[in-house]
Amino acid sequence: MTAQMTAATTEYDVIVLGAGPTGENLADRTRAAGLSTALVESELVGGECSYWACMPSKALLRPSAALAAARAVAGSREAVTGKLDTAAVLARRDSFTANWKDDGQAAWVAGIGADLVRGEGRLDGVRRVVVRTPEGGERVLTARHAVAVCTGTRAVLPAGVPGLAEARPWTSREATSAKEAPARLLVVGGGVVGVEMAAAWQALGSQVTLLVRGSGLLPRLEPFAGELVAAGLRASGVTVRFDAEVASVARDGAVVTVRLDDGTELAAEELLYATGRAPHTDGLGLASVGLNDGDWLSVDDHCAVRGVEGGWLYAAGDVNHRALLTHQGKYQARMAGAAIAARALGRTVDPAPWGPHVATADLTAVPQVIFTEPEVAAVGLSADEARRAGHRVKAVDYEIGQVAGASLAADNYQGRARMVVDLDREVLLGVTFVGPGVGDLLHSATVAVVGEVPIDRLWHAVPAYPTVSEIWLRLLETYRDAE
Amino acid sequence: MTAQMTAATTEYDVIVLGAGPTGENLADRTRAAGLSTALVESELVGGECSYWACMPSKALLRPSAALAAARAVAGSREAVTGKLDTAAVLARRDSFTANWKDDGQAAWVAGIGADLVRGEGRLDGVRRVVVRTPEGGERVLTARHAVAVCTGTRAVLPAGVPGLAEARPWTSREATSAKEAPARLLVVGGGVVGVEMAAAWQALGSQVTLLVRGSGLLPRLEPFAGELVAAGLRASGVTVRFDAEVASVARDGAVVTVRLDDGTELAAEELLYATGRAPHTDGLGLASVGLNDGDWLSVDDHCAVRGVEGGWLYAAGDVNHRALLTHQGKYQARMAGAAIAARALGRTVDPAPWGPHVATADLTAVPQVIFTEPEVAAVGLSADEARRAGHRVKAVDYEIGQVAGASLAADNYQGRARMVVDLDREVLLGVTFVGPGVGDLLHSATVAVVGEVPIDRLWHAVPAYPTVSEIWLRLLETYRDAE
Repeated sequence: MTAQMTAATTEYDVIVLGAGPTGENLADRTRAAGLSTALVESELVGGECSYWACMPSKALLRPSAALAAARAVAGSREAVTGKLDTAAVLARRDSFTANWKDDGQAAWVAGIGADLVRGEGRLDGVRRVVVRTPEGGERVLTARHAVAVCTGTRAVLPAGVPGLAEARPWTSREATSAKEAPARLLVVGGGVVGVEMAAAWQALGSQVTLLVRGSGLLPRLEPFAGELVAAGLRASGVTVRFDAEVASVARDGAVVTVRLDDGTELAAEELLYATGRAPHTDGLGLASVGLNDGDWLSVDDHCAVRGVEGGWLYAAGDVNHRALLTHQGKYQARMAGAAIAARALGRTVDPAPWGPHVATADLTAVPQVIFTEPEVAAVGLSADEARRAGHRVKAVDYEIGQVAGASLAADNYQGRARMVVDLDREVLLGVTFVGPGVGDLLHSATVAVVGEVPIDRLWHAVPAYPTVSEIWLRLLETYRDAE
Repeated sequence: MTAQMTAATTEYDVIVLGAGPTGENLADRTRAAGLSTALVESELVGGECSYWACMPSKALLRPSAALAAARAVAGSREAVTGKLDTAAVLARRDSFTANWKDDGQAAWVAGIGADLVRGEGRLDGVRRVVVRTPEGGERVLTARHAVAVCTGTRAVLPAGVPGLAEARPWTSREATSAKEAPARLLVVGGGVVGVEMAAAWQALGSQVTLLVRGSGLLPRLEPFAGELVAAGLRASGVTVRFDAEVASVARDGAVVTVRLDDGTELAAEELLYATGRAPHTDGLGLASVGLNDGDWLSVDDHCAVRGVEGGWLYAAGDVNHRALLTHQGKYQARMAGAAIAARALGRTVDPAPWGPHVATADLTAVPQVIFTEPEVAAVGLSADEARRAGHRVKAVDYEIGQVAGASLAADNYQGRARMVVDLDREVLLGVTFVGPGVGDLLHSATVAVVGEVPIDRLWHAVPAYPTVSEIWLRLLETYRDAE
């Protein structure tokens, strides 16, 4: 089964295109099953997440969050007499990205016994991959069982904004890897990247203005999430402008000027555009297997690509557009890797929801944490989403600051929680927490939603006193007393 | 059903002895069911927890934890150039105890429509309570349905230590309410009170020595919990001495001297004894209903006292010795209050485990957080307890510092997690987290244990990246790969 895996090998059981967290996890699963595996990567092993997304963004955000927490408590507040050390934060960020070197991750790939093939990979028909090597040559690889596309996404700039490309705006890559704080930073986009980078660079010394097309931030989440984040950003000094449509952009040397539809002109040293992502499938040879280059790859719950005969082509992670989050890509990779291995080894692939070969949680229980101040942590459906999906729903809210544990954690704690209950089954469809430090509260909700733990049983899950987790008791009481 | 409830009323549906969190919650439930309820309290409404335990202890501990978290991260560390402000911490503690005044809590009792009866209550036969009022008189109250004992515990000093009583040692009450930090503090006892107060006063400026009879701290928890807490205490400057048996104590003015069995003499300004608790049942008139004053009250899962005919006597909270924790007392109060109300209203009392009238979690899923540095958060059975209970068990450990989210949260994060799996049912019996800030991670484990969520399903509960919660993924992987 296992081929001898040297650089000269051209036939593998499994070929994985893209060595980000998703590709790495998929290869880990196929290797664990004894399948020879090639991992093709044109940039850094470890992917967007390790170098230009999750890791550097959280490294930029964590020190100011830690400082804010110390400032929020009488007694420790008095000890914080200095300022955030921007140079130290940036140096720490650099260490988390290993200074944008991937030796450690390449060694990890070797450690699991997969072959790392550097270069641009593209499909060239059924179970066949052509890799353009860094040296300019081509290598042809064939897969006995499966090819998995884990190439993720890239930032895209909107078309039709005059001067935008010429102004050399930052995307998420430049925003997470910048070597110093610009004096002024304009951020366009009220999604996760926009709010996190606005928070980070404001804390690191920039004067940040956040420009949002719509009337609120984080539109996919419960409305109060965006409202509390907007209030937090403003309290930190960020200028937040809603209904702001960019008409044109111009750069003049060190200064970039953004002109809005209403004629307002805003100047800054840097401009971050965080308004959209596109699948990294251009130039991927999808036409050779009957698909279209540049499209998102539509998959079933095993992550097998729809419309491709023979079940040999998989797509996991952001590129399949199910849930554009690193942890969800890793999850899909575990499930897809297990499904690929089962098929390759002639075992049954289990199609049952919540089984070992399906990414069921993508449909109902995707968790997300946004590391602003306050933090946002949400899983499952919002109240609106649940109603639109046809559920009979009750949503209950509670101010987290009313919980003893929260008042101990921070003076004047501001935050809110919402629990969305399916009235027919009396289980949770979704939970949202917004407040300082709520990120690690989320997993309690994720277990409850995924575990389909009934409300009656949740009453027996006693939160330790006095922790912030007692918000659970308050939500249950509010639900009970609203009946 | 509802009697008119004035101070003159002598007959109630339910009489609750003790207005700590347990008594308050029980009264809340009986009042919600429309039962007239008297709440008898000889000290402050709100009980030990509000004035001399959970709240002040956590108020003493939180500021130094917040400061430690800021110091643990390069970038914010540099901003912490001052010291913890002990006076500010103590003032904040005072605000959390409302300066040991209970007006707010008394108003809450009035708000739920219960009668607060101040004075020492004692049983005087079946469904009859005598209250010695603060003015020295006596009031006789009778209960149509139930009397609930929620009187908690008090600290006890060990007998047979010469000089101990005369040395006027601190108990948990003085340790949580002291108005200044003693220069030197000796703490005897390696349980929760001992370790938390050692941590608190060391941070607040005392030179603390912790004397422990046995060879480790926190003996009921996983052994690594005590080991990591001991390391944390030592790192903060506390001297920890194991196998330390106190032979005698003597106070000479401002200095108390402790002599150990091995002849060592230790001097300090204050001595905290935190070695044991006794039920607050002395003088409670238990003999009038066939029980013994001073005993713990043994109860069934509805919290009905065993050995008392007619099912009218209940005991909830610490006094029943099921689980000596505020949150667990409140939980028992909810269940017992619901059971009392069901019986009083002629409804069925549901004896099924995990039902609305039984405190099932007391037996299998008690959560606890210890607010030291590192924090300890545990729920359910330790590996040893599970094996002794006859389960076929696998316990898996993982270093929390290896999780990306933990390395982002603190430089050089030190912590460990253990998951105890029932191999026959493939559900969790217990989980322990030890590390900075793990307190609010615990509820994820509590939901998993109480919800009896199978391991197969927990794989679909995806932890958000990069949070500390990804410890869950590592524990599941470790369990899988150890098979």
